[in-house]
Amino acid sequence: MAELSMHDHQQALRHYQPRHFDWQCSEDGRIATITLNRPERKNPLTFDSYAELRDLFRRLPYASDVRVVILQGAGGNFCSGGDVFEIIEPLTKMTMPQLLEFTRMTGDLIKAMRRAPQPVICAIDGVCAGAGAMLALAADFRLATAEAKTAFLFTRVGLAGADMGACGLLPRMIGTARATDLLMTGRSMSAKEGLDWGFFKELFPPEELHARAEALARSLADGPWFAHGITKTMLNQEWAMGIEEMIESEAQAQAICMATQDFRRAFEAFAAKRRPQFEGN
Amino acid sequence: MAELSMHDHQQALRHYQPRHFDWQCSEDGRIATITLNRPERKNPLTFDSYAELRDLFRRLPYASDVRVVILQGAGGNFCSGGDVFEIIEPLTKMTMPQLLEFTRMTGDLIKAMRRAPQPVICAIDGVCAGAGAMLALAADFRLATAEAKTAFLFTRVGLAGADMGACGLLPRMIGTARATDLLMTGRSMSAKEGLDWGFFKELFPPEELHARAEALARSLADGPWFAHGITKTMLNQEWAMGIEEMIESEAQAQAICMATQDFRRAFEAFAAKRRPQFEGN
Amino acid sequence: MAELSMHDHQQALRHYQPRHFDWQCSEDGRIATITLNRPERKNPLTFDSYAELRDLFRRLPYASDVRVVILQGAGGNFCSGGDVFEIIEPLTKMTMPQLLEFTRMTGDLIKAMRRAPQPVICAIDGVCAGAGAMLALAADFRLATAEAKTAFLFTRVGLAGADMGACGLLPRMIGTARATDLLMTGRSMSAKEGLDWGFFKELFPPEELHARAEALARSLADGPWFAHGITKTMLNQEWAMGIEEMIESEAQAQAICMATQDFRRAFEAFAAKRRPQFEGN
Repeated sequence: MAELSMHDHQQALRHYQPRHFDWQCSEDGRIATITLNRPERKNPLTFDSYAELRDLFRRLPYASDVRVVILQGAGGNFCSGGDVFEIIEPLTKMTMPQLLEFTRMTGDLIKAMRRAPQPVICAIDGVCAGAGAMLALAADFRLATAEAKTAFLFTRVGLAGADMGACGLLPRMIGTARATDLLMTGRSMSAKEGLDWGFFKELFPPEELHARAEALARSLADGPWFAHGITKTMLNQEWAMGIEEMIESEAQAQAICMATQDFRRAFEAFAAKRRPQFEGN
Repeated sequence: MAELSMHDHQQALRHYQPRHFDWQCSEDGRIATITLNRPERKNPLTFDSYAELRDLFRRLPYASDVRVVILQGAGGNFCSGGDVFEIIEPLTKMTMPQLLEFTRMTGDLIKAMRRAPQPVICAIDGVCAGAGAMLALAADFRLATAEAKTAFLFTRVGLAGADMGACGLLPRMIGTARATDLLMTGRSMSAKEGLDWGFFKELFPPEELHARAEALARSLADGPWFAHGITKTMLNQEWAMGIEEMIESEAQAQAICMATQDFRRAFEAFAAKRRPQFEGN
Repeated sequence: MAELSMHDHQQALRHYQPRHFDWQCSEDGRIATITLNRPERKNPLTFDSYAELRDLFRRLPYASDVRVVILQGAGGNFCSGGDVFEIIEPLTKMTMPQLLEFTRMTGDLIKAMRRAPQPVICAIDGVCAGAGAMLALAADFRLATAEAKTAFLFTRVGLAGADMGACGLLPRMIGTARATDLLMTGRSMSAKEGLDWGFFKELFPPEELHARAEALARSLADGPWFAHGITKTMLNQEWAMGIEEMIESEAQAQAICMATQDFRRAFEAFAAKRRPQFEGN
């Protein structure tokens, strides 16, 4: 029954029709692309799009046909974050339980992105601000253009840099000092800084960005994607472990991967000097 | 009564007169500058100045008039660390309980710097060594000159790099490998290395250094400083949390900030296209 | 009795004769060099050499005559990792308990390298792949040549990047984003990238590499090596501690070092303007 249920999820995601962003799958279904698509406002998030993204990422652990997710924005910008009039203004009028419900919902999106076994690749051009910067931070890979402007600008609306896990996630990516600077001043990180500091994997011209994201997605999707999911799980899992515990955890995690047929397939392909076909089992 | 007590502290800090370093407040009281002022010996620390600094930073959580702290040295050097004859020599003659009392006192200074809600900006020229390097490491921002020489030189006096939290704090700022190198060899990190590795935010000519630190302090002091304090708290707090716990912690922390009037003030200023006036509540 | 036992270990290591790699001590015994020596296959690891390395590193905490360990490969390459036919093929046929026994053994080597008080210096030329890259990652210092190619290529054989602690150790050295990239794609990190990202301390021409590793080893071996061991212990120990706990731990660790005669020796040498002779007590 559990298997049927997982199968249902898969079918559902192939034909998934979101209401607040675009969703497209590659012909073989392995690569799904989410496009934030309100370009006239630089693709802001709203209460509804937050919730729908959270629900989508929560389904991805069961969607084993989808192997990689690309997240991008339409019209030369990635995402301008929570809309000032659609989100900030209502928040200024809420009670504490309502506020906590909101901050937990946005945090749940980040949790769901990290918990999905699929690598998430953000393709970032132009504005990448506030919650948009958090989506980028929560992804596994960030490709960008020289025009990418990334700002954790919560402080600009009188809030803390502590939003959706930023004070924990960002220091591990670019170091505590640079993270403190970006989170406390809210200043923009240039594409060049992002590249030098390890936030971005590589910069590309705008017209190449999507194709480059797809090429990376393809190489991951055709690789040992069950094992990629374990890599992602362990990167999350070992976040706050001691060294001994990390190593024992990986002994167990890798033993799981060694028990898959994909491991045998890779060895046989190597011995036969051909390219392995991975099946995720 | 508690409020009265906090008010007393504020008054006290405006008129604070330390004995072992200089303390100056900006006209509006928002920016306090600590100057280590024994330039003829490159501003070493002594038992007394350690203790006085610790006591000062421990009062800062209650001093809500002070919004940012600048820490600098007089005469072209930041701080040469624990004085060899005033500190090292006496230590070589102490009993174990006395030694632990000393190492705990120095550690308490670092704890107090991290626990103070005010961002701490170090302005670093010339020598920044031993305990001086630790003061820099414990700060939130480090501005420097091309002449800054930062050395965690504990090993040079036969000690471990494990001093005041260095083995935990430094790896998160510049990575485990560079931290191991600096802590185990005791070698000097050049200003250029410090900039490239994320230790320094920016380098300035010596004659500009103080003004640049003040400009940064001013922009923080006039910003949402209650929220800045939460950002700093959460950067500390999430140091050793798992990802899920980090995100839930920030959901709560940010909900606190959303319940402040500063959040509403920022929105209203944005809507009216004017600059917000933050009041820290 | 315990002391006699430690003495026995010391003697044993001076005259240690491994079967699966080379072991050489400097004339004064302070610097031991391990050379992986199957250059015709780029120095792969086998079940036997893994186990023998693990056993050796487990003896090092008792071998107080050895103060620094250099780890290198013969013939222009560092280490090609687990041999495909000697390790991978047998693994594809093992039961789960056998797989876990293997992954725990390889993990135990990393644990033993981290637990040995001696700084470990890897001198890396050419191929540094798979388990070879993990040996490099677990070391305290990495010197390399411009030809060094470091690849955590577990994914190439259908496995996760989660091998021997990689998902925990690598993000702290080069940041979470770069670590995710290397571990999930299995791509090679160039020597230039390794230097820029803090993985390598310095690059040297191949003909200088060993001498440079020895010079670094000598400076550490003639330094306060008991304190170096405490530095290494604390870098391990504080991996997942909160800030307060880190600082208290270092107060205790440094008090231990201040109670050594090496601390007094360093002070007396400083006062007398001569070079201290450390004795590790």
